Amino acid sequence: MLEKISSNKMFAGVQYHYQHDAQSVNCKMRFAIYLPECATESSPVPVLYWLSGLTCTDENFVQKAGAQRIAAELGIAIVCPDTSPRGDNVADDENQAYDLGLGAGFYLNATEKPWAEHYKMYDYIVDELPALIEENFPVSEQKSISGHSMGGHGALTIALKNSDKYSSVSAFSPIANPTNCPWGQKAFTAYLGGDKKLWQQHDASILMKASTQHVPALVDQGLADDFLQEQLNPESLISAALGNDYPLILNQHDGYDHSYFFIASFIESHLRFHAQHLRKSS
Amino acid sequence: MLEKISSNKMFAGVQYHYQHDAQSVNCKMRFAIYLPECATESSPVPVLYWLSGLTCTDENFVQKAGAQRIAAELGIAIVCPDTSPRGDNVADDENQAYDLGLGAGFYLNATEKPWAEHYKMYDYIVDELPALIEENFPVSEQKSISGHSMGGHGALTIALKNSDKYSSVSAFSPIANPTNCPWGQKAFTAYLGGDKKLWQQHDASILMKASTQHVPALVDQGLADDFLQEQLNPESLISAALGNDYPLILNQHDGYDHSYFFIASFIESHLRFHAQHLRKSS
Repeated sequence: MLEKISSNKMFAGVQYHYQHDAQSVNCKMRFAIYLPECATESSPVPVLYWLSGLTCTDENFVQKAGAQRIAAELGIAIVCPDTSPRGDNVADDENQAYDLGLGAGFYLNATEKPWAEHYKMYDYIVDELPALIEENFPVSEQKSISGHSMGGHGALTIALKNSDKYSSVSAFSPIANPTNCPWGQKAFTAYLGGDKKLWQQHDASILMKASTQHVPALVDQGLADDFLQEQLNPESLISAALGNDYPLILNQHDGYDHSYFFIASFIESHLRFHAQHLRKSS
Repeated sequence: MLEKISSNKMFAGVQYHYQHDAQSVNCKMRFAIYLPECATESSPVPVLYWLSGLTCTDENFVQKAGAQRIAAELGIAIVCPDTSPRGDNVADDENQAYDLGLGAGFYLNATEKPWAEHYKMYDYIVDELPALIEENFPVSEQKSISGHSMGGHGALTIALKNSDKYSSVSAFSPIANPTNCPWGQKAFTAYLGGDKKLWQQHDASILMKASTQHVPALVDQGLADDFLQEQLNPESLISAALGNDYPLILNQHDGYDHSYFFIASFIESHLRFHAQHLRKSS
């Protein structure tokens, strides 16, 4: 059952927020969907899924990125899920750390206690949410995926593991090699346990190095990003792409940081990149 | 003394937040300024002042309107002050109502207790803030002013009372006739006292009817705005403009509400309107 939380007209289309009982994560989940004016049952539009970063919800991208203007022009719907399961019954980090538990689902299926009961964000994003969206809104099955930071990690790993499902993938400031950075190691240890072989299935650099079917990929990284050295490791992604002839476009930008001001500055080029590939595969 | 709170590169320019000891309102005040890349000491840019609505701060417009993209293109700085004086010593409504006291300064000079000590937002916006901005940033003296709701009231009344200072004025969903609506009557009674003659100096419809020097004015109003009937009264503004041959452009938009989703959808046309008039008066 889809329950509408809000709807606001924007750029001639409508920005919605909904919630629903999600089976994969076993809790109520919120998501946002922007539908351009041209989206109708007889003329369904493709969908861009946007995965947000640590501490975010379904609201940050909707309010701060300015993507709807371009989505309206290009005729693309944008779906923004939350970043973790939510609710009183959902486990959180005992210290309420910002980088584990609520707001920090890392877009994988947890296998360890106490996380395994709800933290199945991979299944939610890859299967349950697209099925729900395609059943209830005037959209086609064509889809691309993008995200920021933890969500950039999510977008890249999900597209690399599901090259049949996504026309293109992009990321801002992704956690590009999480098996080799503190955020990733902390999350993977908690959610997946100590066997580092299991971690490799959720590391964009490792997946890109081994990829045989190449989803077109665009990454933007700010060079004044406070997390660049310790957490993001774009050099691992470049190295993986070069070693595997992977068609990765990686733009580095002088002076830009990790914030939504960076995303807003370059989101237009990401939407136009996805529109190009969504058209090709239609 | 200007104290920088934050700076973030955005659309090749920089979005700053500052605070300073403001004399007119006798407290520390925050403001935001977006400086496009082209703004230099040898090539100063004009300034658009943006006045926000009830409950807002210097942050809402910066994060949600998407104006920086167009300001970067047009070469205009945008300054966003807070909506009231702030601080532990500043009076607030005893019930902490959202429409009086903190976050609800109404851009006038209060004369009544307990407000008169700090609530001098008119002097702050018209005199102190522009002097500070012009002294410390690479901007010219050319300026326009815009705002939303209470800030639309502020922009219109300030421009109408200072036609020599502003090249153009615009507003989204302004409180257009505050002497005739609950928000305005509550605020004016508290800040200015019971003499309704004094209120007229802060009513855009009354000022526009009597205006002799016409600052070009643009207003956008959503027709699905929950506050339209009770609080906003754009019909009074239209009537004043018609009766006084005032060059007011008032666009009404089907389906749009009072939110920043509406502002984001039409802010580009406001910036282009101001750019046109700022060029003319240079």
